[in-house]
Amino acid sequence: MTDKRNRRGADLTEAIMRTTLRLGEEIGYSRLSIEAVAARAGVGKHTIYRRWPSKGALLLDSLLSLHEADLDYPDTGDVAADLRAQIHAAIDLMGRPPFGPLFQALVGEAQYDPHVAAALNERFIAPQADKTVARLKTARDQGQLSPDFDLNLAMAILSGPLYFQFLITQEPLTHDYVDRILTALFTGMRPPP
Amino acid sequence: MTDKRNRRGADLTEAIMRTTLRLGEEIGYSRLSIEAVAARAGVGKHTIYRRWPSKGALLLDSLLSLHEADLDYPDTGDVAADLRAQIHAAIDLMGRPPFGPLFQALVGEAQYDPHVAAALNERFIAPQADKTVARLKTARDQGQLSPDFDLNLAMAILSGPLYFQFLITQEPLTHDYVDRILTALFTGMRPPP
Repeated sequence: MTDKRNRRGADLTEAIMRTTLRLGEEIGYSRLSIEAVAARAGVGKHTIYRRWPSKGALLLDSLLSLHEADLDYPDTGDVAADLRAQIHAAIDLMGRPPFGPLFQALVGEAQYDPHVAAALNERFIAPQADKTVARLKTARDQGQLSPDFDLNLAMAILSGPLYFQFLITQEPLTHDYVDRILTALFTGMRPPP
Repeated sequence: MTDKRNRRGADLTEAIMRTTLRLGEEIGYSRLSIEAVAARAGVGKHTIYRRWPSKGALLLDSLLSLHEADLDYPDTGDVAADLRAQIHAAIDLMGRPPFGPLFQALVGEAQYDPHVAAALNERFIAPQADKTVARLKTARDQGQLSPDFDLNLAMAILSGPLYFQFLITQEPLTHDYVDRILTALFTGMRPPP
């Protein structure tokens, strides 16, 4: 009985998130609202508010539900190749609908709404940073990473240039761009001695 | 006569930009409007629209008018020290009102409004990138920078980690953070041979 109720709850959560993405893609983030999602999903808006406090939180969970596992790091034993594969997957996601434009709008919203910013960090950025640090720590232990490299900076240094291109210059993120960034970061700016 | 008219025009432009910053600081970006600036400055709104097509363009010019020269690179002959000094100045600006919160809101707006994004890039990012590349080119010619370092990536690599902290984690930008990032970028992630 409880199992069945839990499963029904999970199905409903899933259905609401799918509706959020579909509707978000159709009408855009700024016109998306919890009321509109409720109407389209055929549920009461309190059903949604019970699970998510805001439109931003609902959208974030919806985006992540589809793709979280895609952003895991492989571990083939070659850290440069594994970073490359993971970042290629990340930009493929950022470069196409529904994830790309809705994620961009969400980050825009995070500049005004501290709750959205906090949710973005807790639900997405911090877990990604943990995965990144874990993968790099293994690499450092295997001598594939400078022992001086400050792992606390890993997320900012590796993803900063991607966010710069995604949010500021707003030029397309390409695999070639990622490869050039990674080469530059591994090599460093200092001339060889 | 024309000189006098030009000077009056420049004074008016200046007064409107000062009013924009003061009002923006008081009421925040989302409540700022060209109408509100016009009322406070005691000019007609068409006087403002003649110079700036949108609130974003007006705010951007207003922010830059105060600080553009602050973001020039020194050239003491030591590129690491000069980058450090320039980036410290940049984050001091980003970390305090009125520039910080208004610039953050403007970048937020750039996620929805392609005109704001274009103005941000043309008026601020591209000129800063040019200055950065020029300073690094001198350094490379003097053997202070890896000859392999791709100058086209300089802006993304150097400022990406700052924007990541400013827009995503939204933790305070400190001089210490900048210094650690610069050290990591100069050293590179690869272990010494």
